[in-house]
Amino acid sequence: MAYIPVPEDQPGIRGLMAFRPETARPLNDLVEVMLMSNEGLTSGERELIATYVSSQNDCYYCQTIHGAVAAAHLHGDEDLVRSVKRDFMGAEISEKLKALLAIAGSVQKGGKHVTPEQIAHAKKEGATDLEIHDTVLIAAAFCMYNRYVDGLGTVQPRDEEMYRQRGIIVARDGYVRVSKTYIPETVSR
Amino acid sequence: MAYIPVPEDQPGIRGLMAFRPETARPLNDLVEVMLMSNEGLTSGERELIATYVSSQNDCYYCQTIHGAVAAAHLHGDEDLVRSVKRDFMGAEISEKLKALLAIAGSVQKGGKHVTPEQIAHAKKEGATDLEIHDTVLIAAAFCMYNRYVDGLGTVQPRDEEMYRQRGIIVARDGYVRVSKTYIPETVSR
Repeated sequence: MAYIPVPEDQPGIRGLMAFRPETARPLNDLVEVMLMSNEGLTSGERELIATYVSSQNDCYYCQTIHGAVAAAHLHGDEDLVRSVKRDFMGAEISEKLKALLAIAGSVQKGGKHVTPEQIAHAKKEGATDLEIHDTVLIAAAFCMYNRYVDGLGTVQPRDEEMYRQRGIIVARDGYVRVSKTYIPETVSR
Repeated sequence: MAYIPVPEDQPGIRGLMAFRPETARPLNDLVEVMLMSNEGLTSGERELIATYVSSQNDCYYCQTIHGAVAAAHLHGDEDLVRSVKRDFMGAEISEKLKALLAIAGSVQKGGKHVTPEQIAHAKKEGATDLEIHDTVLIAAAFCMYNRYVDGLGTVQPRDEEMYRQRGIIVARDGYVRVSKTYIPETVSR
């Protein structure tokens, strides 16, 4: 049971969003614009950054659902998602994405952990200013989503197939559209 | 100089929002609905939570601007803001707010640091489910804003009077309205 009364059939952040539609809207808008874009970074790369940060923050719900969305974007390659979480430097991803994941890992520890050398290395590997911006914001945002989900003690079912199916739907339809299925329309309390 | 090219006259998060209007909109919508509300917690209490978490994350820009907005909501009481940052248990605030700040302090460390005992204590001091929810979300969100602002190396002027004047304007007009003065209207790149 979560620390506040949320719908029992809505795990993780979905229960919190159903409880508080007023904050759910900007939270969904933010994740949509950060992750459902292919400008610079692909949506698969964006989801890998979100998944990696969530795993560093030890948030089961977030790392599993975003890992599933990442896999859905990456032609079902769950091994790649696992290898990024375990040891991204040894994963079969571009040198640019490795440099950006290193920055994301620093952001997870705290903003001041990012170094000029990390930024310079990412630029040397071809990262644009926009890609660096989006990496830092995605990593920072998942330090929020992870704390929100764990800090309110939400229910996080250990059912990999549920996340896998959900990941396919989110990768296809996006966060805002999917959220309309479980967030009440009327904003009143 | 920040790690990415932002307008030089826009300090802290304002430069990042001018750089990336697409993400600025949900980020402003979120802070507006979290902090410019008096439902349950007052806007002054909400800003104190934001200021406290930002000080724990050692983000100069965020703790100073939100401290200034808090003071503006609290009839200019800058001493109260300082005492909350320094030692909230000894500050002249309600026992309920102390209990909620303890929860916020745990969220700052990580979502799993929040304990059932902290939640029970806050409820005993009169905190509602909505107030507990909003406290956790505000604390989590400032773990994002702080990392965003510091992680991209933004310029953060040490000019207390600038923050003080800005705080008065934000407390009066809100974040979304004020943001329109420095975020480009057209979303194109």
